[in-house]
Amino acid sequence: MELLRQTIADIKPVNKESMERVREKWDRKVKPVGSLGTLEEVTIKLAGMTGRVQNSINKKAIVVMASDNGVVEEGVSSAPQIFTRLLAESMSRGKTGISALAKFGNVDVKIVDIGLNGELDIPGVLNRKIANGTNNFAKGPAMTYEEAVKSIEIGIEVGNTLYHEGYDILGTGELGIGNTSTSAAVLKVFANYDIDVISGKGAGLTDEQLKNKINVIMKGIEINKPNKKDPIDVLAKVGGFDIGGMCGLFLSAAKNRKPIIVDGYISSAAALIAAKLNPLVKDFILPSHLSNEPGAKYVLDELNLKPMVYLNMRLGEGTGCPFAFQIIEAALYTLENMGTFEDAQMDSNVLVNIREEN
Amino acid sequence: MELLRQTIADIKPVNKESMERVREKWDRKVKPVGSLGTLEEVTIKLAGMTGRVQNSINKKAIVVMASDNGVVEEGVSSAPQIFTRLLAESMSRGKTGISALAKFGNVDVKIVDIGLNGELDIPGVLNRKIANGTNNFAKGPAMTYEEAVKSIEIGIEVGNTLYHEGYDILGTGELGIGNTSTSAAVLKVFANYDIDVISGKGAGLTDEQLKNKINVIMKGIEINKPNKKDPIDVLAKVGGFDIGGMCGLFLSAAKNRKPIIVDGYISSAAALIAAKLNPLVKDFILPSHLSNEPGAKYVLDELNLKPMVYLNMRLGEGTGCPFAFQIIEAALYTLENMGTFEDAQMDSNVLVNIREEN
Repeated sequence: MELLRQTIADIKPVNKESMERVREKWDRKVKPVGSLGTLEEVTIKLAGMTGRVQNSINKKAIVVMASDNGVVEEGVSSAPQIFTRLLAESMSRGKTGISALAKFGNVDVKIVDIGLNGELDIPGVLNRKIANGTNNFAKGPAMTYEEAVKSIEIGIEVGNTLYHEGYDILGTGELGIGNTSTSAAVLKVFANYDIDVISGKGAGLTDEQLKNKINVIMKGIEINKPNKKDPIDVLAKVGGFDIGGMCGLFLSAAKNRKPIIVDGYISSAAALIAAKLNPLVKDFILPSHLSNEPGAKYVLDELNLKPMVYLNMRLGEGTGCPFAFQIIEAALYTLENMGTFEDAQMDSNVLVNIREEN
Repeated sequence: MELLRQTIADIKPVNKESMERVREKWDRKVKPVGSLGTLEEVTIKLAGMTGRVQNSINKKAIVVMASDNGVVEEGVSSAPQIFTRLLAESMSRGKTGISALAKFGNVDVKIVDIGLNGELDIPGVLNRKIANGTNNFAKGPAMTYEEAVKSIEIGIEVGNTLYHEGYDILGTGELGIGNTSTSAAVLKVFANYDIDVISGKGAGLTDEQLKNKINVIMKGIEINKPNKKDPIDVLAKVGGFDIGGMCGLFLSAAKNRKPIIVDGYISSAAALIAAKLNPLVKDFILPSHLSNEPGAKYVLDELNLKPMVYLNMRLGEGTGCPFAFQIIEAALYTLENMGTFEDAQMDSNVLVNIREEN
């Protein structure tokens, strides 16, 4: 608990002065003020995090938190639990979707077994197993309060280690059959959306199976009565180890004053818990794509984030992160390499006009 | 006229068999069927264009059609006409937004003077000038019918040359103060959207200036009475040389069976004209970002295209293209490098279930 407590206490607000200086730097560029939109915004946000006007992204990693969820015994997923483990093995051999996308984008993938079911020792997978999956939240809490704290602290440790190793940015990914159910439960507790709206078919449920999934989620909330004033209680009762681990990654990013990417529905639920633990965390999170899972947009709304990429993906694994990295790198490059109005010898009065009209 | 006529006649439908084979290839990958969404779709679309299952994107260029619009004398733009030329010069020296983004993305930029105002000879700019800008469409046709044909044929020639030089994909960009007005006029003629909905503030108009812009566009349509059954007549009466040139690029792509990116409002208006000349052209166009110009989404709707990137940009120049190239390349890489269910030794019955549920 001490690591978690200290990390939350160590998070400081962003540096507004650096942000203002980057905004001024953009406004001298040869373009209408603000016309590079989100490209400008991400570099301004990054300056706030690091406190530097000039930033670069060289070393990039996606951390994939892999764990199992006891609730799958209620039939909430179209894939059997063994798939989590098989996919982790497949990922360790560089064969999954994120493996290919990360390799293409020059991004490292770090897989963490934070609670896969079964005593495994997969080469290339960091063993930080808390238990053989969580318990079925339809019958009681998914995990103990202590386990919830531990899952977050594992995420903090992994994040701290990577940022200290020189990674400039991290992305969040996951593997865990059943984790759209835990994520929907977490979102439902914090923000009272209609459960039909935030529950989706995951990898491929039928309409009838979706109805069952919704009933299971509501039953889990009813039985466990998570206390929304205590984010750790919510995580413990209806969350998952993967969500806890990713929550820790977000806290680590904010504490280390480095950027981190929220990617997909499960990652967003984790970011929401982190933001409930310390609202300043939000300023260190950048969005990637909008997942096709229907709840994704609502949880991003809660975080005040707008997706940059729309690819109708619903694979998880952090598959949107490489695209976000690419956009951020392009934005930083443009900030450093684009010319100014002065370079282009454009009339300064016109320049003033264009600025004021915007 | 002969080049245009022949190009339109030479466009053949996409290869459905190659598309089906790529879909099957994706369905063997270790993921729920269809879960890579648009990444799968773009590779399938590309296979239809080229007729090949395995495709690659190595050589990439963005063609920037630069020209002036006589209608700026009506005060429809916040920037003076001289900015088109200054920006072309700045771009030729690698200093504009697209210069930086293209360099970052390993993309060549080809600038074409298809009708800048003034006798210029800018190093690095291809001189294909039709006239010193178009005429003011609020007082009569922007150009003659012959000039409209010529502008399209210049685009076809530029596209043919680049594809023959080995470019695997082209992006479309433009420079032209006043060209959100010509684009809105073209869209208004073809699809009867409310003019208030499809007219925006461009680089930075005030509310009052926007009202004037709308009046000017409606006046231009009223005076010239473009014949929506004849796309070339629409281009001649209320379009621009840049729009004509980009229209030619789209036709060239379809004729050469190569992909091309539609990027932003002006480019979309050009794509719409190309699709009116031959509806098969649509199958060779891939979208990039959604421009912040309010009409952009309506013209993409007309083309049945959904943007992949949302960055709130409104700079033009083809600035969304490098992001689209990146996504397409990542998708092609993933198709070739991701593992299959068989590789991952996953149970084939479960596999069948997951397929059927989707």
